[in-house]
Amino acid sequence: MERTVYLNGEYLLESQASVSIFDRGFLFADAVYEVTAVLQGKLIDNAGHFRRLERSCRELNLTLPVTYQELTAIQHELIAKNGLQEGGIYLQLTRGNEGDRDFSYSEGVAPTLMLFTQARNLVNNPKVQQGIKVISYDDMRWRRRDIKTTSLLPACMAKHAAHAANADDVWLIEDGYVTEGGSSNAYIVTQEGNIVTRPLSNDILHGITRASLITLADELGVTVEERYFTIDEAYAAKEAFISSATTFVWPVVAIDDKPIGDGKPGHIALALRDIYIRTAQAMAE
Amino acid sequence: MERTVYLNGEYLLESQASVSIFDRGFLFADAVYEVTAVLQGKLIDNAGHFRRLERSCRELNLTLPVTYQELTAIQHELIAKNGLQEGGIYLQLTRGNEGDRDFSYSEGVAPTLMLFTQARNLVNNPKVQQGIKVISYDDMRWRRRDIKTTSLLPACMAKHAAHAANADDVWLIEDGYVTEGGSSNAYIVTQEGNIVTRPLSNDILHGITRASLITLADELGVTVEERYFTIDEAYAAKEAFISSATTFVWPVVAIDDKPIGDGKPGHIALALRDIYIRTAQAMAE
Repeated sequence: MERTVYLNGEYLLESQASVSIFDRGFLFADAVYEVTAVLQGKLIDNAGHFRRLERSCRELNLTLPVTYQELTAIQHELIAKNGLQEGGIYLQLTRGNEGDRDFSYSEGVAPTLMLFTQARNLVNNPKVQQGIKVISYDDMRWRRRDIKTTSLLPACMAKHAAHAANADDVWLIEDGYVTEGGSSNAYIVTQEGNIVTRPLSNDILHGITRASLITLADELGVTVEERYFTIDEAYAAKEAFISSATTFVWPVVAIDDKPIGDGKPGHIALALRDIYIRTAQAMAE
Repeated sequence: MERTVYLNGEYLLESQASVSIFDRGFLFADAVYEVTAVLQGKLIDNAGHFRRLERSCRELNLTLPVTYQELTAIQHELIAKNGLQEGGIYLQLTRGNEGDRDFSYSEGVAPTLMLFTQARNLVNNPKVQQGIKVISYDDMRWRRRDIKTTSLLPACMAKHAAHAANADDVWLIEDGYVTEGGSSNAYIVTQEGNIVTRPLSNDILHGITRASLITLADELGVTVEERYFTIDEAYAAKEAFISSATTFVWPVVAIDDKPIGDGKPGHIALALRDIYIRTAQAMAE
């Protein structure tokens, strides 16, 4: 069955949804995006995603054409039209179409806003019990990874390399330190039982799920150290895991073919995942 | 009058040319591009652009769906249909549309090939006699600038900053050294009369015009030093200039509001521009 998607005020069949070849999202990756998880037909952590979208727009001088209320109305309409119970809603906002190609942009051009749903098995995903395998990969991205832009070719290349190596994903390495996953934040648990994750800066995405997890770790009585960690430290960790909007928390059971801990999903990762899902569902909109 | 553009085998009015919202060029900047100059209705240095396109495709595992002969036939058809005498032909190739969004890509998906013309005043452009003003700007791009991808948001931000500062363009700076212009290669002429430009690496685009200029400088009896140079060395230079497919050579008369040399277009830059245009026209296809 064809999905119904949203494009600039219209609800269209996905096969009918297209943008001009002059759209700056297509010509320049002059665009930002967000993905919000959906559980039981409700939006998870959506206010956090909207705040990050607002920040991305500010950083790039992009116009956000909808309020939070208008956006959630669109998202709920898409959930209803597509009968979405579990999965995600992708949103992309571009600087629009000026009818020709010029690096520099004019002010006041109508942006392009597009959203579509993706049905996915989030809660009972087999990756939770299996854990995922990652490979280390050179972080070649630009310097403003805190802005969630569609300049995602490096992530595509990295994930393709991971799959070619029979792994699920990458952990990106810069100057010997882990920055983040291919489209997620990266964490290890030390032998002492502390969670370690890289501090926020322009080097990594400011994960919405990451922010929630840091708060929830405290409720679990687990200390979080926001500091740099090397890939060698990760090899020797008790546990490893990733977080993102639609994985929530996935345990990492091997890095570069080296088993992490006992090679099984870690207890802290699974506990954090459970409390995240319970809390997020209770606050879902 | 509406242009006629090329999209996946069809010639369409530009207002009718659109791509799916699921095109990987739109979602991921999973795409490469080239621009070929047109003078007197003929293609300039087109074989060089095709070779670079082939290289970009190899580096990214992208499929190039046309031979050189097929591509030039499309380009000539666009020149004829649009009555283009002088300007450029833009080409963009994406990894195509898999009907949904997933970072990793499948093999064998049909790529998207799109070309359009832009009428521009290239030979008698006023910037040649005026020279351009540039500002230095932090080079925030990813590490594979040798691949001509559509991940161009940093260039858009940089050029917008230049225009906001009443300049024409930027010179990008990394670790104190000039890498290149906003969409061009960067050169200075020392007080001794030698041309200096950064050597080829993954840090800069391997300019097609740059390669021709280095050969032609020899014919002018000018020594070319391919080495790193700092922005301070550029401030103190006798001349400065940029090169690209559609500017050919433009003199730079000020960097960060400091006049270069006597603040007028330099002799070597103008001589190199003249010999480039004459040579390129003689070999135009």
